[in-house]
Amino acid sequence: MQSATTSQTATTNPGVVHLRGDGPKVNGQRMNDTLHESCQWGCTPDGGMNRLTLNNDDAQVRRWFIEMVKQLGCTVTIDSMGNIFAVYPGKKAGPPIAMGSHLDTQPTGGRYDGILGVLAGLEVLRTLHDQGIVPENPLAVIVWTNEEGSRYAPAMLGSGVWAHHYTLDYGYTRTDTDGVDLKSELVRHGFLGETRSSYEAIPLKAHFEVHIEQGPILDMAEAPVAAVSGVQAMRWFEVKLQGRGSHAGTTPMRFRRDPLAAFGRFVIEAEQTANELDGLATVGRMWSDTPLSTNVIVDNVAFHLDLRHHEDKVIDQMEARLKAKLDAFVGEAQGVELVKFERIADNAAVVFDPTAVGCVKAACGGYPPHNIVSGAGHDSVHTAKHCPTAMIFIRCKDGISHHPSEFSTAEDITIGTQVLLDSVLAYDAKSH
Amino acid sequence: MQSATTSQTATTNPGVVHLRGDGPKVNGQRMNDTLHESCQWGCTPDGGMNRLTLNNDDAQVRRWFIEMVKQLGCTVTIDSMGNIFAVYPGKKAGPPIAMGSHLDTQPTGGRYDGILGVLAGLEVLRTLHDQGIVPENPLAVIVWTNEEGSRYAPAMLGSGVWAHHYTLDYGYTRTDTDGVDLKSELVRHGFLGETRSSYEAIPLKAHFEVHIEQGPILDMAEAPVAAVSGVQAMRWFEVKLQGRGSHAGTTPMRFRRDPLAAFGRFVIEAEQTANELDGLATVGRMWSDTPLSTNVIVDNVAFHLDLRHHEDKVIDQMEARLKAKLDAFVGEAQGVELVKFERIADNAAVVFDPTAVGCVKAACGGYPPHNIVSGAGHDSVHTAKHCPTAMIFIRCKDGISHHPSEFSTAEDITIGTQVLLDSVLAYDAKSH
Repeated sequence: MQSATTSQTATTNPGVVHLRGDGPKVNGQRMNDTLHESCQWGCTPDGGMNRLTLNNDDAQVRRWFIEMVKQLGCTVTIDSMGNIFAVYPGKKAGPPIAMGSHLDTQPTGGRYDGILGVLAGLEVLRTLHDQGIVPENPLAVIVWTNEEGSRYAPAMLGSGVWAHHYTLDYGYTRTDTDGVDLKSELVRHGFLGETRSSYEAIPLKAHFEVHIEQGPILDMAEAPVAAVSGVQAMRWFEVKLQGRGSHAGTTPMRFRRDPLAAFGRFVIEAEQTANELDGLATVGRMWSDTPLSTNVIVDNVAFHLDLRHHEDKVIDQMEARLKAKLDAFVGEAQGVELVKFERIADNAAVVFDPTAVGCVKAACGGYPPHNIVSGAGHDSVHTAKHCPTAMIFIRCKDGISHHPSEFSTAEDITIGTQVLLDSVLAYDAKSH
Repeated sequence: MQSATTSQTATTNPGVVHLRGDGPKVNGQRMNDTLHESCQWGCTPDGGMNRLTLNNDDAQVRRWFIEMVKQLGCTVTIDSMGNIFAVYPGKKAGPPIAMGSHLDTQPTGGRYDGILGVLAGLEVLRTLHDQGIVPENPLAVIVWTNEEGSRYAPAMLGSGVWAHHYTLDYGYTRTDTDGVDLKSELVRHGFLGETRSSYEAIPLKAHFEVHIEQGPILDMAEAPVAAVSGVQAMRWFEVKLQGRGSHAGTTPMRFRRDPLAAFGRFVIEAEQTANELDGLATVGRMWSDTPLSTNVIVDNVAFHLDLRHHEDKVIDQMEARLKAKLDAFVGEAQGVELVKFERIADNAAVVFDPTAVGCVKAACGGYPPHNIVSGAGHDSVHTAKHCPTAMIFIRCKDGISHHPSEFSTAEDITIGTQVLLDSVLAYDAKSH
């Protein structure tokens, strides 16, 4: 961390000098200090975070956030899913240009995922407030409820209800591993708002989200920041190969029905398909229904396949090719059967709004452009269906996230916050 | 099962007509009836067996066995490992020609593995006794203690102590999952004999063992019986590949360190190596030190590799080739490390005695010869170090063993028992 200074000088915003914008400048020192101040609730001894949705720490940081934005003159609306909308007035009324992300974390999470996006929004409002700048449109900072999906599956639940992707009743009835439902936790902490959680009740003019990349692209490219053009399509499959368990010492190779032989070929083919079609393919989970033993041929293998690509039609190609190859491998592995090949998740690609993305790209101007397509889901996936949306990725060390070692430098955080401010003001200037 | 008849006729020994021997004939009906009579202790409702070493059922069948052999005039010696030696007198004194196997089973075992070998020996003695035939040498039926290794690991423990492969103290201090040691169970049931368990204290002139094949070779060849020329060499390895767990959606293929990619290639190579060098290679157990998740690249993969071949020098070749290939795959899978490649078991090949095997082959004469090398371990592995040894394999359905569905037909059992009788008498005739 940087040394503490109270004045806003060039040294508080290192790296920002490479940005082209000549408008107001965020206070990098304050941004970073506030980020870590907000992590007093839920921090763990290893430097990470454990702030599950609507636990006591999450409730405390939400109350703190509301206090901070009220000091800036914001109007705070909490909707029926506990999503918090802090609106900073503009010259005219109407839907705000929002800066949203989340404050909940994974149980062994870091200090940047989500938190950074909300706190960058706060710093943008503080900068405008300090400098007496009134935007054309109202601006908003949004805290979306339960983005991680750790305490309450699925992920991106608050924004999903707002977007009508899930019903409110569905959101309320999600339960944690102790059987506690989400609605009762909203009630307990006083976060069950009266305004309906809906893009109709609370429309947005646009949604900008700063987030750590959660991947290694910027780290490898030595770039602090980049515009995100969309979110990859993702398709998950559950696959099961049935062979026949038998004695490893007494079963000749030609009489075996070993599903691992087909599995091995498939893993290699999945890798090659991803490379050739410029997508991602992962076998991250595999198991067997029967106990495994050193001297017994595996009876069956089940696994999950995760395919990603920025174009939906290429996901279709990847699926068709891998299914055909799997059929061929099963045919070669005499007596092994493909007993399951089932889609268990299917998310279409999201393309962000060209105007909003253009504002981010222009704001990043001084840094080499990187056309990043997000591999992970974010609240912006849901907002993109109902308002122009764009994201800003900030470099994170070694691409690691969802881990206490998750890290972005104070300099990169400052740069990302400045890009958010410049993007929002540029969009605001186009929208009056 | 066959219909019950009390007289020894051709119909009680179907299939035996294809054998060339013109000596005394076993009573197939009695053999099969007695086999199932012995299974009253430890049988399970699914038709299988659960008779773990020195549990109450095992103690009861041992007492029953002793009663049966005493009715034939046998002298019974129990050694300090509870191995039972039932000696039937010959024309001269000296070490007996033995017929040995075991009465303990797997917890979900069948009615044939081991049991068949002991009961075939009993039927041989009954046949000689009925017909008043006195062999040149004493004959013995041996019940070896704890062959399966299910209650007390390792397997083949009683014969292993007799062969000085393990010390008596090692045998005594093996404990089951409840912490009960083997010696206390010998004491509890009265099977702690005074004679030292040792090939020096209880020498054998030869050892013949009838056993189900536990593999599919005879079933596929439609042959009821075959001589066994030895036991394969077996070598086990524990291998661990360390990669780096990372997000499946945000980590480009080129930045991945996915140990599953190297694992897949290795599985295929192991299969090819086994095929080309006429051995067996099995990856039967694999796991990861870290939890697996659909959208996380596997952090590490560990697995066991089981290699078998009838020649020790080819096992060496298989190991060298697979290690070199694994090094190459790891080199290709950027950043994946081979952090463990360790031998965890190493059993040299056993070649049975040509004279004893020759007696079995001659006894099988009417059936097509199959040069079988056992893939599984047996008590005969230990006896082979200290006396001429041979085995007789009997066909089992689909090659299945260690399962309630383990099955050999009454006809095949009769044929195998007849081959045992003929082999022992042929060896006896050569040994006076």
